[in-house]
Amino acid sequence: MKLSNSLLVASLIATSTSVLADEGMWQPHQLPQIKQQLLKNGLKINPESISKLTEFPMNAVISLGGCTASFVSDKGLVVTNHHCAYGSIQYNSTKDDNLIDKGFLAKSFDKELPAAPGSRIYVTESLTKVTDKVIGDLADDLSGEARYKIVEQREKDLVAECEKADGYRCGTYSFHGGLEYYLIKQLEIRDVRLVYAPPSNIGKFGGDTDNWMWPRHTGDWSFYRAYVDQDGKPADFSKDNVPYQPKSHLEVSAKGLSDGDFVMVAGYPGSTNRYRTSSEVTNQFDWVYPTAKRYREESIELIKRVAPKGTEANVKYLSTLAGLANYAKNYGSMIESYNKGDMLERKMRLETDLNQWINSDSKRENRYAQSVTQLTELVKQSNLHQERDLIFGYINRSALMPVAQRLYRLAHEKQKDDAQRKRGYQERDMTRFTQGIKRLSKRFDVEVDRETVSHFMAYYLELPASERVAAFDKFYHIAKGTKLTSINKQLKAMYAKTELTDETKRLAWMDASVEQFKASNDPFIVYAVAMYDTVLVQEKKDKELSGQFQKVRPNYMAALIAYKESLGQAVYADANSSLRVTYGNVKGYSPQDGLYATPFTTLEGKLTKYIPGDEEFDMTAKEQSTILAKTYGRYYDKPVGSVPLNFLSTVDTTGGNSGSPTMNAKAQLVGLLFDGVYESIISDWDFDPKISRSIHLDSRYMLWIMEHVSGADNLIEEMDIVE
Amino acid sequence: MKLSNSLLVASLIATSTSVLADEGMWQPHQLPQIKQQLLKNGLKINPESISKLTEFPMNAVISLGGCTASFVSDKGLVVTNHHCAYGSIQYNSTKDDNLIDKGFLAKSFDKELPAAPGSRIYVTESLTKVTDKVIGDLADDLSGEARYKIVEQREKDLVAECEKADGYRCGTYSFHGGLEYYLIKQLEIRDVRLVYAPPSNIGKFGGDTDNWMWPRHTGDWSFYRAYVDQDGKPADFSKDNVPYQPKSHLEVSAKGLSDGDFVMVAGYPGSTNRYRTSSEVTNQFDWVYPTAKRYREESIELIKRVAPKGTEANVKYLSTLAGLANYAKNYGSMIESYNKGDMLERKMRLETDLNQWINSDSKRENRYAQSVTQLTELVKQSNLHQERDLIFGYINRSALMPVAQRLYRLAHEKQKDDAQRKRGYQERDMTRFTQGIKRLSKRFDVEVDRETVSHFMAYYLELPASERVAAFDKFYHIAKGTKLTSINKQLKAMYAKTELTDETKRLAWMDASVEQFKASNDPFIVYAVAMYDTVLVQEKKDKELSGQFQKVRPNYMAALIAYKESLGQAVYADANSSLRVTYGNVKGYSPQDGLYATPFTTLEGKLTKYIPGDEEFDMTAKEQSTILAKTYGRYYDKPVGSVPLNFLSTVDTTGGNSGSPTMNAKAQLVGLLFDGVYESIISDWDFDPKISRSIHLDSRYMLWIMEHVSGADNLIEEMDIVE
Repeated sequence: MKLSNSLLVASLIATSTSVLADEGMWQPHQLPQIKQQLLKNGLKINPESISKLTEFPMNAVISLGGCTASFVSDKGLVVTNHHCAYGSIQYNSTKDDNLIDKGFLAKSFDKELPAAPGSRIYVTESLTKVTDKVIGDLADDLSGEARYKIVEQREKDLVAECEKADGYRCGTYSFHGGLEYYLIKQLEIRDVRLVYAPPSNIGKFGGDTDNWMWPRHTGDWSFYRAYVDQDGKPADFSKDNVPYQPKSHLEVSAKGLSDGDFVMVAGYPGSTNRYRTSSEVTNQFDWVYPTAKRYREESIELIKRVAPKGTEANVKYLSTLAGLANYAKNYGSMIESYNKGDMLERKMRLETDLNQWINSDSKRENRYAQSVTQLTELVKQSNLHQERDLIFGYINRSALMPVAQRLYRLAHEKQKDDAQRKRGYQERDMTRFTQGIKRLSKRFDVEVDRETVSHFMAYYLELPASERVAAFDKFYHIAKGTKLTSINKQLKAMYAKTELTDETKRLAWMDASVEQFKASNDPFIVYAVAMYDTVLVQEKKDKELSGQFQKVRPNYMAALIAYKESLGQAVYADANSSLRVTYGNVKGYSPQDGLYATPFTTLEGKLTKYIPGDEEFDMTAKEQSTILAKTYGRYYDKPVGSVPLNFLSTVDTTGGNSGSPTMNAKAQLVGLLFDGVYESIISDWDFDPKISRSIHLDSRYMLWIMEHVSGADNLIEEMDIVE
Repeated sequence: MKLSNSLLVASLIATSTSVLADEGMWQPHQLPQIKQQLLKNGLKINPESISKLTEFPMNAVISLGGCTASFVSDKGLVVTNHHCAYGSIQYNSTKDDNLIDKGFLAKSFDKELPAAPGSRIYVTESLTKVTDKVIGDLADDLSGEARYKIVEQREKDLVAECEKADGYRCGTYSFHGGLEYYLIKQLEIRDVRLVYAPPSNIGKFGGDTDNWMWPRHTGDWSFYRAYVDQDGKPADFSKDNVPYQPKSHLEVSAKGLSDGDFVMVAGYPGSTNRYRTSSEVTNQFDWVYPTAKRYREESIELIKRVAPKGTEANVKYLSTLAGLANYAKNYGSMIESYNKGDMLERKMRLETDLNQWINSDSKRENRYAQSVTQLTELVKQSNLHQERDLIFGYINRSALMPVAQRLYRLAHEKQKDDAQRKRGYQERDMTRFTQGIKRLSKRFDVEVDRETVSHFMAYYLELPASERVAAFDKFYHIAKGTKLTSINKQLKAMYAKTELTDETKRLAWMDASVEQFKASNDPFIVYAVAMYDTVLVQEKKDKELSGQFQKVRPNYMAALIAYKESLGQAVYADANSSLRVTYGNVKGYSPQDGLYATPFTTLEGKLTKYIPGDEEFDMTAKEQSTILAKTYGRYYDKPVGSVPLNFLSTVDTTGGNSGSPTMNAKAQLVGLLFDGVYESIISDWDFDPKISRSIHLDSRYMLWIMEHVSGADNLIEEMDIVE
């Protein structure tokens, strides 16, 4: 699952479809509410026992920031997805010692390798409801912008106060579009080490071709270890650090699951849009996704044309290309599912029912009726300039223009107190900021960058005058009838003259003053300075709109929740990177009439995909021969007739859930969540129990490889393996 | 199934894999031998009763020449595949009245339309073993060529004698590579009329995209009617003709089948290669198919380049392109299956076992041992020039060179008595010959034709001198180091000068004398004359080799059959366009680990494939609304939850079987065979019961469309529909 968490958390909202079996990303404290369903589905332990963040098993479920992981030993051993640890494997690879290809196994603690810089393990320690502190006393007549600023400041203050405790990272999370706020406090472990990663022909088997696809044969796991100082406190890497002792850890099952068995997944899903309104949905699926898909496909063509295969420039854009293609495929699937399905009809029916329910009682009418019309109005307003905004979004996929703007913004923000600065420009953000500025060098080519700007400028030139941006037009000398050729000439001169392509010079701008920027004649710096006021004005407008949404959407959600409660239905909030639990069962599905996806794949199935020497479908000789010899050991599953490799279940997950422990009815680890099937990509908007399926690594395959192929006996010894 | 019967019936041979359940294309008279298996599989009538060609149900199963069909009423109503009647639908279409798009239904006999010229219905009336007459007294020391000629002449004589009966078409069929010969006599009905064809968005739904694919949703049926004169004899079309009264016809089932039910298919499968030797198999899969696949892909690229989409030339090559792509896909599937599977290992094991069995008994050794070594030797010999032969094969996919050669050959053959002429040049062949000469006009473009010759000439120029053909080299002035540019110059001049591009002039050459050819200065005629002697010499060599195969392969097959009989196994012969019966069960299969192809598709499944206005996936509004209204009528199947559309079974079929009646355990028509799945394309060489599946139209879908969409009440009334 290559979705980052932050995708499409735009300033929009929505309506729920009726809650069906297996749908729902529940906050642990909600689980007692749905106790009956959990037990009916097969949970064998008390639902209360999984509802506490700080008790087993929830306190074994940790965040890597963007991915989920879990403790699997009392010595801080952590298991997550291979693709979640990929950066660390890459970081420790050299040309002569390529750990991505070969895999890595530390046979003792002292052989473990430092994870990539910035790697973190977050252990959630507390969750406090702070709704009252954030919005409890806000006046109704505040302007949107004022409201936005107050909320932002209060959230910052809460975080700052919380982070006074050394070794903690805190964050506020809004639920239901701002109806509730929680402050979450997480222990931030900074000494993270790589313990074990299979070779990429196991961990990444199938590559981009199989991404989102079933049948699947990916051994998507890796092991980290958390280290702390001798006092048990988070610390930077040191030889003297010791393994962290988690309060609890998961047992690992060598027995696994069968078709129909209960499963639950705990993790940190990034974001979903299950409660958007029908007008938000139509805009997204009729305009945003089709247009963005086209823009991505054009970008791919452009890069392939300007930086053809085999060139040095091409290598720099491989990951960009993969990302572009990944989302083009993602959007394509969603458009397909939307056109085939009836999400919109169901949404409209729900909205009708909701309105009827509201209007059938004068108290409810007074309380909620306005929020529905206000929300519709806000949505309309927020889409007004979306064509222009999307074009700018793609212009800013080039590197130099936005990098110059970020640097200049930093010079301004640094004039303020740290707490007053814009998010992303505070001291706590500076490591990541520097990394971003550096990373450019590896992913940048002048020709591609310039052509990218030029390509989307052509769309900009076609916009009606009312949609054009004065400062931008002035900088690029755009008037009525301006041709792209003249823009291209200016771009050519800009890229020829700029020094921002030099990493050292780029980094040096991080320390420059506003005056130094204003005095520069580097064309991209001049651009950043020229655009600055416009950006601020736009931000002000955005904040005004966001503030209004923050006022209206919670009311709308409150209405929806009250309506659902009147029907006896529990309501979960959209995913927001906070810890959630989802449950379901092992189950196949029919991707098409005449086809059924069976819930398990096998070792032999991997063998039929094997392509010698292929980048995506190669296999080690050892794994092949072990399969051919039918050396299944204790991991053989009779109904499946082999060692199960991956499996399907009905649990409700999304990006951010990657690496989440998949647990059986007794909360033992039976697998790792790592993807969803192609037909359920749309589930970020609409969960369909018939076809929404998550893809899991089967713990039996992981243990089989560890025991029979990798020789990771030390780790098998360390974990609590249960039959 | 777009395989023509004649594919790859090259001069090769082979070894059987052990006969497994459902494998086998049995001659009806063999069915009593496998009685137990038939009954065990579910046949509900006496196997003896289906073993007689001239009794029910076999006498209801008829040939269209290349396709199979069956009588379904006592008034000569015939049902076959839409793709088998396609030529007749096309023939009756005009720009303003496009029956392909709209479909056609004659509501009364007088509205029925004449089928395409040359359309025939063949009713098998007798089958006589003539092995003794053909090869009974042949001396062992005959040369290959002499043997070939004698056999050919005797076959011709038998046919000529048989065809003295007016209204009959006869043919000799060799079984097991010439171990047995049968003379088959068929009533040849010449007045064939089109009765009913659904629109192509039913009959050809899925188009080339879905060809060979599952899940499938193709309504691949059409109806003909056979007419004879008032005396009941075959006659040319006449208003006075009357419907033919078949001796029997099939009842049509409205109840259909369920998963696991017994099915059998009777029809005229074209050709298979189940008994080839391991050396023939390796040569075919390691060299012939990969090379031919490449040549086809190059041809496709060439045509697309020279005649791009949108040009008039492109339209002329649409069917050529489809054919090229169809077989490239076909070969690709076979190569894939071969590389994944173990056919070769099994074949080699069988050969070892066979040799052991032969050599363990001196009588057997005397009788058979030589045939094994001789066959191996002959195979080697026949492959000696295969590279050159394949290149010439693709050079001759251009039109003008071979057409000139065919015309000149005709002038020579016409000097002989009709009975002495080469096959294809006899009086009985002249209608088809003329059609071929005419058809060229619609499928020919000078540029494409010339570039095709040039493209494959480049390969010819790379051949070692020993493989080059003197007359050809002389004509094209080819010496050591000749460059393609000089050939291209000559080709350009030839195509500029020739008059063979003119249909009238081309047809006129059919009446020209050898002398007129020799006197011509049309460059292609000059080419034909120049190559003539070489062609004759090559034919002589081919006949010598074929004659030797005809002597050796029957001995080898006799050994194999004796060996199998010693194991208690019945042996069926490779398909050869004669009437066969195959049986099996309705059954899905696993095309890949983690996927299962379920055996039925449904109306709703077709709806999910619908693409408005698409050439392949469009649907009529009537069909859509009838599905959406769930108007299933009596064709609803409870387990499937809808009206079943297509289904899968384990029966053993190949090209030529298209249109075959699929019968249930009581010999009622429950569907029409029309294709095989992608994974079983290799089954022409190797039947794998795990993945070899035939695709059938379900009679319930056909009847549902007739009753609820097409309004074909008159036909439903005419047929015997049974529940």
